[in-house]
Amino acid sequence: MADLAQQISALGRRARATVPVLALATTAQKNAALTAMADELLASRTEILAANATDLGNATAAGLSPAMLERLHLDAARLTAMADGVRHVASLPDPVGRTLREWSHANGVKFTKVVVPLGVIGIIYESRPNVTSDAASLCLKAGNAVILRGGSESWHTNVAIAAALTRALARSGLPVDSVQLVPSTDREAVKILCGLTGVIDVLIPRGGRGLVETVVAHARVPVIKHYDGICALYVDAAADLAMAEQILLNAKCQRPGVCNAVETLLVHRAVAAKFLASAGQALRERGVQLRADDEALAALGGAAAPQVVAATPEDFRTEFLALILAVKVVDDLATAVTHIAAHGSHHSDAIVTEDAATAERFLAAVDSATVYWNASTRFTDGSEMGFGAEIGISTDRFHARGPMGLEELTTYKYLGRGTGQVR
Amino acid sequence: MADLAQQISALGRRARATVPVLALATTAQKNAALTAMADELLASRTEILAANATDLGNATAAGLSPAMLERLHLDAARLTAMADGVRHVASLPDPVGRTLREWSHANGVKFTKVVVPLGVIGIIYESRPNVTSDAASLCLKAGNAVILRGGSESWHTNVAIAAALTRALARSGLPVDSVQLVPSTDREAVKILCGLTGVIDVLIPRGGRGLVETVVAHARVPVIKHYDGICALYVDAAADLAMAEQILLNAKCQRPGVCNAVETLLVHRAVAAKFLASAGQALRERGVQLRADDEALAALGGAAAPQVVAATPEDFRTEFLALILAVKVVDDLATAVTHIAAHGSHHSDAIVTEDAATAERFLAAVDSATVYWNASTRFTDGSEMGFGAEIGISTDRFHARGPMGLEELTTYKYLGRGTGQVR
Repeated sequence: MADLAQQISALGRRARATVPVLALATTAQKNAALTAMADELLASRTEILAANATDLGNATAAGLSPAMLERLHLDAARLTAMADGVRHVASLPDPVGRTLREWSHANGVKFTKVVVPLGVIGIIYESRPNVTSDAASLCLKAGNAVILRGGSESWHTNVAIAAALTRALARSGLPVDSVQLVPSTDREAVKILCGLTGVIDVLIPRGGRGLVETVVAHARVPVIKHYDGICALYVDAAADLAMAEQILLNAKCQRPGVCNAVETLLVHRAVAAKFLASAGQALRERGVQLRADDEALAALGGAAAPQVVAATPEDFRTEFLALILAVKVVDDLATAVTHIAAHGSHHSDAIVTEDAATAERFLAAVDSATVYWNASTRFTDGSEMGFGAEIGISTDRFHARGPMGLEELTTYKYLGRGTGQVR
Repeated sequence: MADLAQQISALGRRARATVPVLALATTAQKNAALTAMADELLASRTEILAANATDLGNATAAGLSPAMLERLHLDAARLTAMADGVRHVASLPDPVGRTLREWSHANGVKFTKVVVPLGVIGIIYESRPNVTSDAASLCLKAGNAVILRGGSESWHTNVAIAAALTRALARSGLPVDSVQLVPSTDREAVKILCGLTGVIDVLIPRGGRGLVETVVAHARVPVIKHYDGICALYVDAAADLAMAEQILLNAKCQRPGVCNAVETLLVHRAVAAKFLASAGQALRERGVQLRADDEALAALGGAAAPQVVAATPEDFRTEFLALILAVKVVDDLATAVTHIAAHGSHHSDAIVTEDAATAERFLAAVDSATVYWNASTRFTDGSEMGFGAEIGISTDRFHARGPMGLEELTTYKYLGRGTGQVR
């Protein structure tokens, strides 16, 4: 334990030492390093896939679920996709050095607010080994050192990927310690990372609620949390019901296992019977189970209807990540907004209506990272929103909210240029 | 203890309940409330000054230092200044609702990134009772509820000020719970505030290092820290030495007790003898004690010279907040930058040089909230930098860096307006 703490602390100091170098690295140097990283991932295909086979063998023996095995699995195509992802990050604009604002003091001191890297970013993640290269490339492009702590099930794969990235960094001339993998998958290592004040500038936990909660409970450094997406769609009295149905089917069924999928449907009483008769049928045809409150239950044909059950209060606070939808009939916009505030997770919520005034009231009143009018919640995504890539979707209000791209991995400083001014 | 936890938890829930109301409050409503607050502070002069007299009597009996008593003391002029401060906040532009960015998805969904309030802000502060109205007015203007926890020595004064603010809120129609004072000055109350996840969006501790460290140690919610200002001035070989001396005298002597005062002087060897002979004399005339490294000591006339002592390593890591200056001779720009990185507090640092290339290297390499070229570090201040007012100066890199004005008390959300788009 003391050994592990010392090891991680030394790793942190090495990361810290790269900060001044990375802060001054040019865009060309960073892009060259990223290109080298992509090349090296492909050149190391044999080792990485062999390591992944070891992990898969262990995971199968340990009885991991097929979904977990699927997430863990790498093949040549997935490795190529990882390398392409790194190359894509190289192609994105460099956020560092951008001028955010310029102004002058009355006395002539000229102030400039410029973007600078955050410093050292810790990423704590589970199963998916592609996070190792995705996170490393995004952090590096924004001029940050990164400390990666992957899951135990992908240990051998992550070691092989990190080794490839380190070789590429060595070749490129940027510090090899810019990207480091924590040499332990012990839960204790997470707690040690959480305590590295003065070393880690922000920790980003990406994974299940248990992981995020562990980090929050122990963190003495800033954390950007990636919690649940309990997203709602509100179908207003003035909705185009055909449009509402299309948006609902997309938001619920296109990819039910992700955080921007809809988990709750709120329907205005005036259109509930008509909308639920049609949309309910379409959802059932796609295998969706409907958990309905009393009024919605009646509109859906009662609890005896196929794939329809009476909702419990808990259903309206649940991220199902599955073909399940909680359904509720509401009196009006205000009730919908209040429901979302009380039960949602402030991630992504949508209204469907043809009434612009109602839509604007919803957009103003719903306090979520992304709020939609007549569009699917599935657009809450760094790529869809034009950020180029994303390191995750923050459910925090602090520093970064919603999809986090390169810009969200930076901070700023002020420069004051004078000619001898004093107060 | 359980009672206190319940009380503070109930107070937090009341603050939370105001969030949707404050988020939708118009600029006119907020300004009317602020004007009412300023009026009510003046109308409550008798009560507030009587309460302050009680606090001063207790503090005198408890043997508080003259400096502490001075900070605690209110009179009619100071109360008028507090009211004027609140009126000034009313006059500032409202940060909420501003569009930060607008763009469209290729499919036509129009995205807008807009400024929204942070939510509930907790301010933990010591002695100065004017923080009660300053912090309340800034938080309210940015659409936030505020929970104030002042020091025990100013308890009666804070209660009287908060009561006045609450009466004004009641009259203005905004929720009275928008501004609340924690009903306990027990240190335990700070720990309880630190644990109010889901209630408090950010805690801002303003006070001594002990207070900030207590908050950091216990916080489960985001914290913006206001730590030391260990600021350095580097006098380059190519400096205009007369300018350097003026800036040094200003940065060290104009107000030595504040965080943007200079604590460390670094002088390039090429100009050390000449600069220190003149500047050393000027500093001594102003009562400054010089703590010099070996080379600087020689240039200053040795340890036998008046007000000159040999520096210890600790002197270069100390926020003196007094007429004391640590002095060191350095080889070059790189040594100066390395010294600042290792010993400074990333608050405000300055270079004096006539060489623009050297200046730009310093501005790029020094990783502090504000970095100056040929200007005094004393400009690191919300008012001086044109923010209108400040709630403090963040020494963090996260969310807000340097002086924090109204903008830094906000976050953002994304609005997506479509016409039925799905993925």
